[in-house]
Amino acid sequence: MSQQLSVGALADIVGGEVLRGDPMTRVGRVMPTDLAESDAITFVTKAAYVKALGTCRAAAVMLSPAMAESESIPEGVVVLSVQRPYVAYARAAQALAGQVPAPKGRHAMAVVEEGAEVADDVALGPFTFIGKGAEVQAGAVLYPGAHVHAGAKVGPGTVLYDHVVIRHGCTVGARCIMHPGVVIGADGFGFAQNPGPDGVEHVKIPQIGDVTVEDDVEIGANTCIDRGALGTTVIGRGSKIDNLVQVGHNVQMGQSAIVVAQSGIAGSTTLGKEVILGAQAGISGHLNIGDNALVHGQAGVMEDLKPGAVVVGAPAVDKREFFKSVVRTRKLGDFFNRVKKLERRMPAAEDE
Amino acid sequence: MSQQLSVGALADIVGGEVLRGDPMTRVGRVMPTDLAESDAITFVTKAAYVKALGTCRAAAVMLSPAMAESESIPEGVVVLSVQRPYVAYARAAQALAGQVPAPKGRHAMAVVEEGAEVADDVALGPFTFIGKGAEVQAGAVLYPGAHVHAGAKVGPGTVLYDHVVIRHGCTVGARCIMHPGVVIGADGFGFAQNPGPDGVEHVKIPQIGDVTVEDDVEIGANTCIDRGALGTTVIGRGSKIDNLVQVGHNVQMGQSAIVVAQSGIAGSTTLGKEVILGAQAGISGHLNIGDNALVHGQAGVMEDLKPGAVVVGAPAVDKREFFKSVVRTRKLGDFFNRVKKLERRMPAAEDE
Amino acid sequence: MSQQLSVGALADIVGGEVLRGDPMTRVGRVMPTDLAESDAITFVTKAAYVKALGTCRAAAVMLSPAMAESESIPEGVVVLSVQRPYVAYARAAQALAGQVPAPKGRHAMAVVEEGAEVADDVALGPFTFIGKGAEVQAGAVLYPGAHVHAGAKVGPGTVLYDHVVIRHGCTVGARCIMHPGVVIGADGFGFAQNPGPDGVEHVKIPQIGDVTVEDDVEIGANTCIDRGALGTTVIGRGSKIDNLVQVGHNVQMGQSAIVVAQSGIAGSTTLGKEVILGAQAGISGHLNIGDNALVHGQAGVMEDLKPGAVVVGAPAVDKREFFKSVVRTRKLGDFFNRVKKLERRMPAAEDE
Repeated sequence: MSQQLSVGALADIVGGEVLRGDPMTRVGRVMPTDLAESDAITFVTKAAYVKALGTCRAAAVMLSPAMAESESIPEGVVVLSVQRPYVAYARAAQALAGQVPAPKGRHAMAVVEEGAEVADDVALGPFTFIGKGAEVQAGAVLYPGAHVHAGAKVGPGTVLYDHVVIRHGCTVGARCIMHPGVVIGADGFGFAQNPGPDGVEHVKIPQIGDVTVEDDVEIGANTCIDRGALGTTVIGRGSKIDNLVQVGHNVQMGQSAIVVAQSGIAGSTTLGKEVILGAQAGISGHLNIGDNALVHGQAGVMEDLKPGAVVVGAPAVDKREFFKSVVRTRKLGDFFNRVKKLERRMPAAEDE
Repeated sequence: MSQQLSVGALADIVGGEVLRGDPMTRVGRVMPTDLAESDAITFVTKAAYVKALGTCRAAAVMLSPAMAESESIPEGVVVLSVQRPYVAYARAAQALAGQVPAPKGRHAMAVVEEGAEVADDVALGPFTFIGKGAEVQAGAVLYPGAHVHAGAKVGPGTVLYDHVVIRHGCTVGARCIMHPGVVIGADGFGFAQNPGPDGVEHVKIPQIGDVTVEDDVEIGANTCIDRGALGTTVIGRGSKIDNLVQVGHNVQMGQSAIVVAQSGIAGSTTLGKEVILGAQAGISGHLNIGDNALVHGQAGVMEDLKPGAVVVGAPAVDKREFFKSVVRTRKLGDFFNRVKKLERRMPAAEDE
Repeated sequence: MSQQLSVGALADIVGGEVLRGDPMTRVGRVMPTDLAESDAITFVTKAAYVKALGTCRAAAVMLSPAMAESESIPEGVVVLSVQRPYVAYARAAQALAGQVPAPKGRHAMAVVEEGAEVADDVALGPFTFIGKGAEVQAGAVLYPGAHVHAGAKVGPGTVLYDHVVIRHGCTVGARCIMHPGVVIGADGFGFAQNPGPDGVEHVKIPQIGDVTVEDDVEIGANTCIDRGALGTTVIGRGSKIDNLVQVGHNVQMGQSAIVVAQSGIAGSTTLGKEVILGAQAGISGHLNIGDNALVHGQAGVMEDLKPGAVVVGAPAVDKREFFKSVVRTRKLGDFFNRVKKLERRMPAAEDE
């Protein structure tokens, strides 16, 4: 499913320059240095790894301008100089990756309700559903079982994998990717407690807001983004969310967040830009998380975080504090013994 | 999608009384005091917030009889006195919320197997499936892709959103709401370990029980309720469960529980009534959790809980104990220094 | 839905021997000793429980050869001697369990693309999808809404419940069970950070690997197994995975693992054989977890584990260390008081 490109063509794609060797050399994939075969281009992300090129079989290498001056690069390897080799790897791998098999055209078992606007080139697999008044823009692809409900919008080039559900009135931007089972716009979790003679009744607060997923967002399998109670839950431009994540109603996630698997954000919390949330972490509701905050895996954030904060633990504290605390706790046994020794050595008090 | 109602009509709906102003005044939505526009009714939940009505643009307000005597309420605002303003908010918002777009009738691509009993007014979206011997009662709504397997029952007025799966023989009561991707009645997780020459074989214990979801239960997106190994997993009347929750086989959940996102309850645990389980909390198997127990987010409950217990942490302990422990742990560094100082000041012992 | 078998026939199935009573006695189910009725066979897993047979109404009992000599077994009960009574329970229950209602044949609303190879006796429910070049082998059963994408393989006798998605090119072995909503082969979570004037851009690293699920694996509802970035994510033979679990790209899970609900394994981690992972536990990426390691619920593993390690807590430590630490932390208040007392009793130093 892959194709071949010349190193020169890749230079244009990744924004680099061929410093040495034949730019017409063709490669078919990107591989790490230790595994690369002769049909591959490899890449080096740290100066210390340049040496490993000595035994590498790759036809070409992407590295930074500084690394490109190394004498460890074997003769005959085509050298492509790039500003950020890891980013270049990602872009080259995208260019060389084959097409993933995808639906084409409109399947006879796709259901498009009256009044939906679906661009001509949208691909609708079998068992897809577009509700009335929904809008699906050019180049979008709906895998089998994807549903876009009444009044929802899906931007150009967006891919909805199997069984993705966009509930009514929600908006998904351009070039988004939603993996199988994603649910956008289910009701948020809100009830008013009404005590009565037979016990508490939880009276449902209608969730009449919606969700906006901005452009270039990717959302992992079976992740849920709840609709606002009033107003809009927002997933900022360029954010990437992993599998099985929970985003509560009225969360405002800034641009370019990284949200790792099984983490959760409770209702009405605001995240600045470029926040990173580790796996299985949780953030309480109604908090403000500053730009570039980094929440480690399994942390439980119960207070606002300043921009750039790095927190660990539950309740989450500054990372250095957390690990100091871990070390101290581990020393407690030894410490208890020191206090016992002090007690034994202490001169007896008269009143005891 | 919303409608307008008179404040007098709302008074009937929420069980209140118009104390002042014209009961024929019409409103179209409920909004918080600070955001309310002139087509809205607002509500006040605490006496301290009554003052804020001074600058509020709402046409009407719901507040308690005591608050209704305040002089801060501007002239011209219709005053609706209610016992519980927050509950009145929920009920008024329900009444004013427009219809959510839903399937109507039976779609040509709905599959109903022979021997299923489906009431005449049940709405079956495309790609829905009703197995043989299943029963779906009056007014139920199945969104596209919802499945009710052989011998399962769905009560009157229940809504199954997209891709909900009710496995064979399970029962869902009246007026329940199951958000997209809910799975009711998948096999519980039970195996017998059989050591052998090639390693341990995990022999499946057939899960031949079922699930009963009682009336007025709401279950969030992608949540899983496993069927009993033998016997029945029960979700009590009026319980509300959030997204991505796991409920193990043979759990007995009492009435009116609140179970927040990503929490889990292991097999055979019994919850009393009105238990609250915070986000990402876990409860071990075979435990008894008393009525009105409150388990905070991310807690790990490893022992029975008494009625009214409030626990935090993993392993979960009484909330006050937990926070005392957090404070003490944070003081450890300072404390270690005090002991070092004691050691320095201690008169030398002869034997050291 | 169940059937009856003679105890003699069960003896063949579970690999045991009828020591006493009429082997032609028929039973219809396996029940625990305290609940068993006269149509049931029961089982005893510990010598201490043999006494309970005195009041048990079961027609037959499975127990170990040593237990079979007990005088507590009432006359008239058929005694079936087995090496491992709990394993015998599982196998007998399998034999006695009725058929679960399942699709038969190929439904008219199943979609099989050209070039797919589907064995004649494969059952395809409505709304199932088989992509081009996919292969589904003999006796496999696809419940409504299950999808097998282009180039994927599903082994003989494997059951895919509702809405299971096997993405392109992935392989599932023989006799596997995938509960509703399982996603095999969604993209792993990998991005290259590209800082720019408008903030960080997360450039997608194409996930061009795949997943291999070996034979006899069971995977719980809504669990996600991501495809490799390069190479293959592997779920070892005989492993059993519960609901809502996350397995990251390039994880190598050994044979016969037990992975309990809502736990997660980050990318590129290798698990030996027979690893047990408790509920809501997490394992960081790029680690080696030794054979037979046992990770308790909610633990957070941040380092390699040796074979047989038993760990608790986050960060996870040896179980005994963890509980010592819990006990010490609970004693801190008392301990602080002892140090205060020492300070009071300490003779004043000249310099203070």
